[in-house]
Amino acid sequence: MTQTELPLGTYLFYRLSQVTKTVFGVPGDFNLNLLEHIYNFNEAEIKWCGNCNELNAGYAADGYSRLNQFGCFITTFGVGELSALNAVAGSFAENAPVLHIVGTSSTSAKTNSTFNHIHHLIPSKKTYEASDHGVYERLVEPFSIRTEILSGKSLGKIQEQIDSLIEDIVCHMKPGYLFIPSDLPDIIIPVDLTKSLDFDLCRILQVNEKNTKFVVDNTLRKLYGAKNPAIIVDQFMKFDGKEVNEFLRKTKFYCYSTNSSRGIVDETLPNFHGVFNGRISTEGTLQIFDENDFVLYLGANINETNFFGGESSILKDKDCILVGKDYAQLGFGGDLMYDVNCHVFFKQLICGVDFSLLPQIRIRTQTARYNADYGVLKEDSHLSQKSFSTIVSSFIKDNDVIINEMCSFMFEMPNIRYKKNCSFVGQPFYGSIGYGIPATLGASLAIKDLKMQGRAILFQGDGSAQMTLQEFASFIRFEIDPVVFLLNNDGYGVERVIKGPNRTYNNIAVKWDWTNLLSVFGDFDHSKSFSLKATTAGELMEALASGIDFKDGKVKILEVILGRMDVPDRFKKIAGVAEKENNT
Amino acid sequence: MTQTELPLGTYLFYRLSQVTKTVFGVPGDFNLNLLEHIYNFNEAEIKWCGNCNELNAGYAADGYSRLNQFGCFITTFGVGELSALNAVAGSFAENAPVLHIVGTSSTSAKTNSTFNHIHHLIPSKKTYEASDHGVYERLVEPFSIRTEILSGKSLGKIQEQIDSLIEDIVCHMKPGYLFIPSDLPDIIIPVDLTKSLDFDLCRILQVNEKNTKFVVDNTLRKLYGAKNPAIIVDQFMKFDGKEVNEFLRKTKFYCYSTNSSRGIVDETLPNFHGVFNGRISTEGTLQIFDENDFVLYLGANINETNFFGGESSILKDKDCILVGKDYAQLGFGGDLMYDVNCHVFFKQLICGVDFSLLPQIRIRTQTARYNADYGVLKEDSHLSQKSFSTIVSSFIKDNDVIINEMCSFMFEMPNIRYKKNCSFVGQPFYGSIGYGIPATLGASLAIKDLKMQGRAILFQGDGSAQMTLQEFASFIRFEIDPVVFLLNNDGYGVERVIKGPNRTYNNIAVKWDWTNLLSVFGDFDHSKSFSLKATTAGELMEALASGIDFKDGKVKILEVILGRMDVPDRFKKIAGVAEKENNT
Ligand SMILES: Cc1ncc(C[n+]2csc(CCOP(=O)(O)OP(=O)(O)O)c2C)c(N)n1
Ligand SMILES: Cc1ncc(C[n+]2csc(CCOP(=O)(O)OP(=O)(O)O)c2C)c(N)n1
Repeated sequence: MTQTELPLGTYLFYRLSQVTKTVFGVPGDFNLNLLEHIYNFNEAEIKWCGNCNELNAGYAADGYSRLNQFGCFITTFGVGELSALNAVAGSFAENAPVLHIVGTSSTSAKTNSTFNHIHHLIPSKKTYEASDHGVYERLVEPFSIRTEILSGKSLGKIQEQIDSLIEDIVCHMKPGYLFIPSDLPDIIIPVDLTKSLDFDLCRILQVNEKNTKFVVDNTLRKLYGAKNPAIIVDQFMKFDGKEVNEFLRKTKFYCYSTNSSRGIVDETLPNFHGVFNGRISTEGTLQIFDENDFVLYLGANINETNFFGGESSILKDKDCILVGKDYAQLGFGGDLMYDVNCHVFFKQLICGVDFSLLPQIRIRTQTARYNADYGVLKEDSHLSQKSFSTIVSSFIKDNDVIINEMCSFMFEMPNIRYKKNCSFVGQPFYGSIGYGIPATLGASLAIKDLKMQGRAILFQGDGSAQMTLQEFASFIRFEIDPVVFLLNNDGYGVERVIKGPNRTYNNIAVKWDWTNLLSVFGDFDHSKSFSLKATTAGELMEALASGIDFKDGKVKILEVILGRMDVPDRFKKIAGVAEKENNT
Repeated sequence: MTQTELPLGTYLFYRLSQVTKTVFGVPGDFNLNLLEHIYNFNEAEIKWCGNCNELNAGYAADGYSRLNQFGCFITTFGVGELSALNAVAGSFAENAPVLHIVGTSSTSAKTNSTFNHIHHLIPSKKTYEASDHGVYERLVEPFSIRTEILSGKSLGKIQEQIDSLIEDIVCHMKPGYLFIPSDLPDIIIPVDLTKSLDFDLCRILQVNEKNTKFVVDNTLRKLYGAKNPAIIVDQFMKFDGKEVNEFLRKTKFYCYSTNSSRGIVDETLPNFHGVFNGRISTEGTLQIFDENDFVLYLGANINETNFFGGESSILKDKDCILVGKDYAQLGFGGDLMYDVNCHVFFKQLICGVDFSLLPQIRIRTQTARYNADYGVLKEDSHLSQKSFSTIVSSFIKDNDVIINEMCSFMFEMPNIRYKKNCSFVGQPFYGSIGYGIPATLGASLAIKDLKMQGRAILFQGDGSAQMTLQEFASFIRFEIDPVVFLLNNDGYGVERVIKGPNRTYNNIAVKWDWTNLLSVFGDFDHSKSFSLKATTAGELMEALASGIDFKDGKVKILEVILGRMDVPDRFKKIAGVAEKENNT
């Protein structure tokens, strides 16, 4: 142990700078003491990105974490942290590794029993009772994989609290919480700077070696015996894209992604056959899937939207093995084997496999149809979800980061085949609208920080945009250059199709002028953004083909006018089911 | 019992229409079945006001409740309800009676144990475990005075559940929660339509009669014996403005309001002497307060900001009786007498008082100075918090509804003397920034619904405005006509004064063009709004004096340019204290 001493706040940002270059958030009097310490570092090490509100900060950190595998944001006591809770819930549900740091009331206020009714803190129900300074800290339990509450009492423990928290967040791919009383950031704590963060999944996730070996052996046996096995690569394989793709390239096994795993599997592989999503998989995928006599479901993230409606029959009739984050299952619905992790499993699988025993697979000449059946584009016809899908398919390039709001176009996503090394950022399961714009800020800053090649491309509904649109101002402030397709269908299309097509509750504010928004959001001289509106396919194609340089440092807002009730076919199927389910 | 039958959703809106004319919120697939039922009523009975996001909906309902004594908003499962939690916390902390209705997962999804991982619901920490459909419902306990979770099981109980919930919310002046599974709104329930809501405080608050009588007797004895008694009227007297003002007019007792009770006491009374707020009371108030030999602190809402810093010495040395919502205290810091309610207490006091025994009070010729010392306005000098305060004082008229964001101007508020029948809407204690704009929507709709006389006047900081500014679009959509003073001091002034005056964390997005905002938020032809920017006192005065008709149906945005570090003197005092407290 090489002990040294540092102010708590300085140590925190020192450690954070090893896993992120940007910290999001909003200041408040309970976190100012902490924020001061970020200025002990230069901007290349770690920097502050102030957001317009805390929900947006949470979404931005989530967006950042999707590319960087760690995101962080800071809020203030009560007012700030509660505003962001929905973003953290989203990170939890979508497996995004985000650290939410909260500046809380001071250690002395917390322990003052005579008068502790301080601002931002809800009082007790009996007005004469003391306030509960721990009320917000207890609240986050279901949303936090690990929560650390710093106190002035055991300074020697603080390094370990901070380090383990970061390690857990990264390894679990789940959010965690750090509560720091306002008086502690300047306090000097003992730290060992030779210690480094340790992301050993086996230690952190408590992997069961025996079970893992058992599942590996069984999987190998199945693979050796199969004629045409397939792999579904799901979200918990996020850490392993490179190895997975190598394996798939080598074995030529048919492979599929899921809604929440888009971007892990290289979709340009000739053995890639679309997005598996039960009955609503990519057009043509299920017919191909029928040919597979064994399926390894790797990184399984089984839920309603990733797996469509809980509908299990397609897998029930299959010979399959599922390996998730913390379990495996031999046969869908079979007994659970606990503490098997897909990442650890896969490493052992590729170590143990004898390639000569694997079946020889012929590349299937025909793959899924995606949106191929939509027909030829008519340039002068009004844009529709279908023609837009076709245009998007040829617009997407290698390395693009595709951000998708939970608008109706989310249901078209499986029909868009990605190019090499594309990433997906979205909430196909949690589905909180408003995520798109701040997440694009986060993803765009990650692209900068990580010096990635790609463009950030956002697919944003107009109804959802309302929720968080002030964060467009941060696009200008932090000089990012995403392409935003603002899909304007005059209201909540998704809801209109489910119920009340003409009800006032499905209308949104009068008439947002999307193409002029940025001029009042900071780009007063139009030097930092470019906007246009497209009504016909021709207009949009021309815009995309013409002079617009997509790495020009400007925000691009392309407003796409769509019909009110025009939603992807896949959503129509789902809407029928949703109506039924919500009524039973 | 005259039983009849109605669909649950229809009964709910029928009952709500007796306490509110507007319901705020955002649709989602879990509440659409419920929303449909509002269309069984015409708009004059009860109507839907769709907001841009759920936090804003919660703030709007809170703003509405300040004038209407009840507010209501509806959100959807998870994504919606969590987004609004901070607004509900604010309502709880500021004693605003708001009902938050949440459309949740259906009763069948809730009880399905094999596959219940549905969208908007966070999964369990072990990915193989069932999801917990009650996780959000349990969360709200500290923020909710009463929570009702409807189920399909005891339909005969539902009327009672809904009615009691509304009664509790109104009588406690606190938010409550109603969770309605998505499959229940159409279900037929038995109801008794002859039953009416019963707001009997004694029943609902469980008032202790003996204690109440004891405190009334003691208070009368004190009042009869005092030479110059005073009454501080605090927030929990909100129901009793009329009676309180009559009593004060009659007795001529010196009286004071508090930050959170502004608008209850008629500030034009010659015996009104300002806002009591410990050491930072209205300029001149404490000297006058010194003359009072007994103080009745009525409706006491004792907390840091309403009572400044917990600093009790000023009252400790006073002969005083405090009567709060659920307790009384003879002498500050004395023993608590439980279950005494200020409203019930006051009714008994005015019934029992023998006016002939009360001391005769002479009206004091000099009252508090408020902002009188700020000197003469120089028309061509740059606007400052002080000159702005002076201008505002003469701008305010009878019946105005004054909405104050938690920006630095909040600390100038005590220096503005209100005219007759003014109301105050704000969060001086909870202090969540972003409240102002949506609360102005709510208050303005309440003004319309209640056919009130006054104007809605919002004092809004630029930094806070960022948080929720999309709700300006609803100003246009719902055709309200508030006056908005957009106080632009280029960032977070309050924070700059506490720490980091030039730090990036106190900067906000580049350059909001406040006076052009509404043109892209729906008022494309400038028919529904009017904006101007004032840099000098003269410019602002001219604007206020000239052609602008303030009941013209238009939104008025008056951008006021202020210095970066220019904050009210009262805030400088507090900032010193805050720095110290956050560091200990
Ligand atoms: C925070 C939140 N509030 C409400 C919802 C319910 N919701 C889901 S989709 C949707 C409409 C989205 O509208 P838009 O972005 O215009 O996309 P469109 O459906 O028109 O394609 C709504 C209101 C939600 N998912 N999240
Ligand atoms: C939701 C929320 N986030 C953060 C804060 C901390 N905070 C209090 S005042 C303030 C600055 C407000 O700035 P502005 O509205 O411009 O008013 P000014 O202080 O400049 O007068 C901030 C960030 C808060 N109170 N609430």
